[in-house]
Amino acid sequence: SSAPSPITATLFPGDGIGPEIAESVKQVFQAAEVPIEWEEHYVGNQIDPRTQSFLTWESLESVRRNRVGLKGPMATPIGKGHRSLNLTLRKELNLYANVRPCYSLPGYKTRYDNVDLITIRENTEGEYSGLEHQVVRGVVESLKIITRQASLRVADYAFHYAKTHGRERVSAIHKANIMQKTDGLFLKSCREVAEKYPEITYEEVVIDNCCMMLVKNPALFDVLVMPNLYGDIISDLCAGLVGGLGLTPSCNIGEGGIALAEAVHGSAPDIAGKNLANPTALLLSAVTMLRHLELYDKAERIQNAILKTIAEGKYRTADLGGSSTTTDFTKAICSHL
Amino acid sequence: SSAPSPITATLFPGDGIGPEIAESVKQVFQAAEVPIEWEEHYVGNQIDPRTQSFLTWESLESVRRNRVGLKGPMATPIGKGHRSLNLTLRKELNLYANVRPCYSLPGYKTRYDNVDLITIRENTEGEYSGLEHQVVRGVVESLKIITRQASLRVADYAFHYAKTHGRERVSAIHKANIMQKTDGLFLKSCREVAEKYPEITYEEVVIDNCCMMLVKNPALFDVLVMPNLYGDIISDLCAGLVGGLGLTPSCNIGEGGIALAEAVHGSAPDIAGKNLANPTALLLSAVTMLRHLELYDKAERIQNAILKTIAEGKYRTADLGGSSTTTDFTKAICSHL
Ligand SMILES: CC(C)[C@H](C(=O)O)[C@@H](O)C(=O)O
Ligand SMILES: CC(C)[C@H](C(=O)O)[C@@H](O)C(=O)O
Repeated sequence: SSAPSPITATLFPGDGIGPEIAESVKQVFQAAEVPIEWEEHYVGNQIDPRTQSFLTWESLESVRRNRVGLKGPMATPIGKGHRSLNLTLRKELNLYANVRPCYSLPGYKTRYDNVDLITIRENTEGEYSGLEHQVVRGVVESLKIITRQASLRVADYAFHYAKTHGRERVSAIHKANIMQKTDGLFLKSCREVAEKYPEITYEEVVIDNCCMMLVKNPALFDVLVMPNLYGDIISDLCAGLVGGLGLTPSCNIGEGGIALAEAVHGSAPDIAGKNLANPTALLLSAVTMLRHLELYDKAERIQNAILKTIAEGKYRTADLGGSSTTTDFTKAICSHL
Repeated sequence: SSAPSPITATLFPGDGIGPEIAESVKQVFQAAEVPIEWEEHYVGNQIDPRTQSFLTWESLESVRRNRVGLKGPMATPIGKGHRSLNLTLRKELNLYANVRPCYSLPGYKTRYDNVDLITIRENTEGEYSGLEHQVVRGVVESLKIITRQASLRVADYAFHYAKTHGRERVSAIHKANIMQKTDGLFLKSCREVAEKYPEITYEEVVIDNCCMMLVKNPALFDVLVMPNLYGDIISDLCAGLVGGLGLTPSCNIGEGGIALAEAVHGSAPDIAGKNLANPTALLLSAVTMLRHLELYDKAERIQNAILKTIAEGKYRTADLGGSSTTTDFTKAICSHL
């Protein structure tokens, strides 16, 4: 923290195991001398009328100001009259792209080797419009909205990501054979953007076929871009290939270059406070945040230390079949920095 | 065919490899002395105004009359002003449930062992309404429709199937945390039906989590029931676990007990007419048709002969890594009857 001008980043430790895994990130960042100062915000215990949710207005202002943040798992309180915390964040901060790198962890065996995919999900519209109604009893309708603007925006992000990360191919995932107009517009937008990136191969894959191909041979894919719901489904499927949401990072990109990295697994209230949680997903998400800040050296060093610790297998948390505590796992990572 | 009263069944050989794999079914059925007479119908070469598609009215009348049929792959001709052949069949015959058993084939190795699942998909509404519009330029909307009637109907089919097939659990797959009203109505309907089947365990699983669990450990599931699009996605994912659509059967159930079994893979025009196609999916689909007709002995005998032939591995078609022709593979099956 003696670096010239430390970057301020918002930290939402979140609920359940959130504070423990956030502590792990803080320790690893300190050990790696990452020039970041955290501005911590917790979910409120009453609805903030300005956000219509339990998220405080101040916490959103913090992300808007800092333009970069890290978020642990948040359990939306049960009840009516308020919005889900995750959806509020996406909406209020206009987090239009959800980026999830998904790769096999060396030494951690699953049925799949050498997975190395990026899923990029449109995060603001589609099936998540929240517009549903029942006019005739027993007949309910839900509106899916696809816009040219949001489709171009996420497609552009995907191609730009591919280009700047040495990726060769972008696959647009769709069901335009059935939803010709909505998914058709999504594809049309992707095609338009593809023309600006002649060095990137572009293809279109129907979602059902995509899922079949992913489980048969995930090496067929590189970068995948898709509307909201398909992204929700496929990003979890891909996480499953390499071990699950406890091991995969996620980062949300907003207008004007905001980046909010997050662990997308649950808050695991059953093991909260017991020093048993696996901080890997939040740590790897924090690494994506560092890359976004162009702190590539720090990102690389921390990622290598995490992967090395998992590969060695001496310190693994219970979810990975080990018996290490969160703090011992974290110490092992620090020792590998 | 000297049996007292043979059953008449409609056969759509379909396009591409369709006629070859249909021929394989005919030969196996003959060798097994199945008391079925086929009434063959081909896709027409012009639009029939009564069906608004290339399917002839007579062919639909044939299924309506016989109440049972088998269908090879159909390639919907390109062009405007007509409906997809598959969707026309589902609509005109009110094929409300698509049932796909998905199990590991002994001796045919994939990444997964002992898969044994049934996916049951609502087949008439949901995201397949065909209702899409663009009012504002660049903003397209699509309507998803969920009705209580269709949800109860498919849920009832799923629980009845579980009960009569010795299955223990039905999982309803949904995204009701986002689409609270539409998927909420689907779940409510499933719960209502579940109460009538206290001997069957009922659970609800969010689709993204379901896909992650399926790739991590498919043994967690038994019978899955879900709205149209989720069924489209998950049935293909499950097929991928055991080798793909070339190996998995499918049967559509309509009002009044109509059953139309079908191979859901493509028509593979590149290998059509070359005696290279794998007839397994159509054969196993024909077996589900026999079970529907309560011809259990014949179904069992034929299924065993197919599985034995694949397990031995001496006669396998190219898609399974062998070099057998369709006819040799078929002969091998007949020799195992
Ligand atoms: C919790 C849920 C609302 C959320 C979503 O559907 O987007 C989650 O599945 C995710 O992927 O972040
Ligand atoms: C070809 C297509 C219209 C169809 C569907 O989406 O239902 C197919 O994927 C299927 O599952 O039968």
